[in-house]
Amino acid sequence: MKILVLNCGSSSLKYQVLEMGANENTLLAKGLVERIGSPNACHTHKVDEREDYKVEKAIANHTEGIKSVLDILTDPVYGVLYSLSQIDAVGHRVAHGGEYFFKSVAVDADVIEKIEKCCELAPLHNPANLTGIKAMAELMPDVPQVAVFDTSFHQSMPDYAYMYALDYSYYEKYKIRRFGFHGTSHKYVAEKACRLAGMRLDKTKLITCHLGNGSSITAIDCGRSVDTSMGFTPVEGVTMGTRSGNLDIGVVTFLMEKEGLDAAGINNLVNKQSGLQGLSGFSSDCRDLVDAEKSGYNRAKLALAKLAYDIKKYIGAYAAVLNGVDMIVFTGGIGENSDRVRELVCTGLDYLGVDFDFEKNAGTRGVDVVLSKPSSKVKVMAVTTNEELVIATDTMNIVNALKEKAAQNENDNN
Amino acid sequence: MKILVLNCGSSSLKYQVLEMGANENTLLAKGLVERIGSPNACHTHKVDEREDYKVEKAIANHTEGIKSVLDILTDPVYGVLYSLSQIDAVGHRVAHGGEYFFKSVAVDADVIEKIEKCCELAPLHNPANLTGIKAMAELMPDVPQVAVFDTSFHQSMPDYAYMYALDYSYYEKYKIRRFGFHGTSHKYVAEKACRLAGMRLDKTKLITCHLGNGSSITAIDCGRSVDTSMGFTPVEGVTMGTRSGNLDIGVVTFLMEKEGLDAAGINNLVNKQSGLQGLSGFSSDCRDLVDAEKSGYNRAKLALAKLAYDIKKYIGAYAAVLNGVDMIVFTGGIGENSDRVRELVCTGLDYLGVDFDFEKNAGTRGVDVVLSKPSSKVKVMAVTTNEELVIATDTMNIVNALKEKAAQNENDNN
Repeated sequence: MKILVLNCGSSSLKYQVLEMGANENTLLAKGLVERIGSPNACHTHKVDEREDYKVEKAIANHTEGIKSVLDILTDPVYGVLYSLSQIDAVGHRVAHGGEYFFKSVAVDADVIEKIEKCCELAPLHNPANLTGIKAMAELMPDVPQVAVFDTSFHQSMPDYAYMYALDYSYYEKYKIRRFGFHGTSHKYVAEKACRLAGMRLDKTKLITCHLGNGSSITAIDCGRSVDTSMGFTPVEGVTMGTRSGNLDIGVVTFLMEKEGLDAAGINNLVNKQSGLQGLSGFSSDCRDLVDAEKSGYNRAKLALAKLAYDIKKYIGAYAAVLNGVDMIVFTGGIGENSDRVRELVCTGLDYLGVDFDFEKNAGTRGVDVVLSKPSSKVKVMAVTTNEELVIATDTMNIVNALKEKAAQNENDNN
Repeated sequence: MKILVLNCGSSSLKYQVLEMGANENTLLAKGLVERIGSPNACHTHKVDEREDYKVEKAIANHTEGIKSVLDILTDPVYGVLYSLSQIDAVGHRVAHGGEYFFKSVAVDADVIEKIEKCCELAPLHNPANLTGIKAMAELMPDVPQVAVFDTSFHQSMPDYAYMYALDYSYYEKYKIRRFGFHGTSHKYVAEKACRLAGMRLDKTKLITCHLGNGSSITAIDCGRSVDTSMGFTPVEGVTMGTRSGNLDIGVVTFLMEKEGLDAAGINNLVNKQSGLQGLSGFSSDCRDLVDAEKSGYNRAKLALAKLAYDIKKYIGAYAAVLNGVDMIVFTGGIGENSDRVRELVCTGLDYLGVDFDFEKNAGTRGVDVVLSKPSSKVKVMAVTTNEELVIATDTMNIVNALKEKAAQNENDNN
């Protein structure tokens, strides 16, 4: 089954085409359309063992962007399909499913309406996701579409974990609560780590650390998300590349008054100018900070120490939530690649039963690997994530279920 | 040694007179002047085994309030002193010592200047504290005064614990960082709990939970505060009576836009209308919520569950910070008295080695008590706090040290 995975951002569009087999999956092509809406938009397209395609041109909107994608997919030189009819289904990453969606769903009018209702909760992303869904419906009306939500995995949280201690009416009026994000990644690496470690997900207490430019930590009890560090928005939680993570509200009101900032100014500050970038004063990238730390730059050391400290505190908090932990999983750009951050986080967790293999950790990057010693009570792993593969898998499963149901109905009617 | 302890709020003044002996301390009198600045201010004065004194009258400012206190202290009927000269020293609770003070100090011109510099960090409290200090200097110029800071105990935190992931310049420009509060209480109950349990403070990993209308949790490593849940202001941390505790900054900017709130509106919201009050919709008092929970009121149950969950997460986080924990101490109005909250917090902490004595906990209120079973690896205690006693003790010690030094100087000169 060939599946097109689409991830529409506010002015960009990422895609992959995957061939999903029963036992094996192949990435056929992937690409990116950037600066949608501008006269010099850019479309990059990659197929393994072929020359990259890269063209700058005017792309007015997401529909035109998707047309450009479909064109290149069937291009005689750069394409991987002889006809668009080879695409069996389209899977969309959708940022926010609110309280409507606790799993992936086939797109229909009702689903579209609900995604629209969640636009207020993700004003930059949900409208773009919807544009992608509508454009595909227009361009390929007979191909089934599936929506996979960044939030749905976390809908299993209990109320005392997702409620803020605010006037209850704000929850009723605006749905102000913790939603959490990176759900597809947390779910994927939890399943993958258990499979690789020979552990049963439904009997395991897991803490998954998705650490990238945006980062979140999740407590997973027997396969269900019970708490996660991102909240109503992706700004809450640990220190990120340019996002502040947790912050005293008193700091916000103090800065509003001192610096004359309004809501937009604060949003810009805590999303774009804070985190590792703000603390270090020179980079949001862990690799730069590790180099600078080695050169004796104190603020790089501070930024890394603060990041690791935040992660460690969440691991501790979620161990309390789960009443212990069986496995800690690192993933995402930093989690998969930064041995320094993993080392800082895993130092001094003896009390939990973590016996970290510092030697094995050193230099280990971008692979699926156990990083704790064989005798460690708590297993520590680094596992590569693949959100597109989750989207493609969910899409395949939903489309297959729909087909089975249709076949069953036909049988019943005969 | 007789010590007058003064705690000046923005429009109130609390006081105690303590007789500090080498081995024993006695509370001679205590009282409260409320609504200072109004024509119907109220002065209440209590002496054990005597009738209370309570008078409404105009009190224009803190100096007049203090005069009223000094008058009643030497009153033939309600007083406990025959002359003001019996007061050996005055100890002041000062809200904010910024980065200037890491312990209590004798008040002099330099100290006053530094407390003034911290007014921006505690605009409601430090000016009131200063008024009290200046009024006493005017009324009793020869009596030594000591300043005891709510923040100083936490000045031992490492930078990665006290820095926020914001632009570093805000720390340089405004000292935006975690300060923490309730320092006198955390320090006092840590010492007291260790003494009662026969443990050495300098070899113990402690988590102290000061839970009252304002609440904070502190990680104490060998007697030093290494992290605490309140931050730049007392709004950060766990759910409180009417304060929100931790909250996604994205919620703040969302509410500013939707509800048309400015900085003052947000401050009012997260300080006065949130917490247990906001969530439950009817009370900020744990006792009311426990009753309502028993009657099946779901939002009271939610408010209590959320409070306990917040506390449990901090205990977990700080266990990670300390690499384990030897003792958990509950104090403050809720910590000392709410068996329900303690029970909720201590359920499911087996992984840490907590074997909580649920039977002993039930109904236990307002006493110093061990609440874990004898076999428990982690000791759990409830301990009554007494911030005034810490202030009086620090004051006595500093005054005694000054006297010794003066005597030494005199000896040296002879």
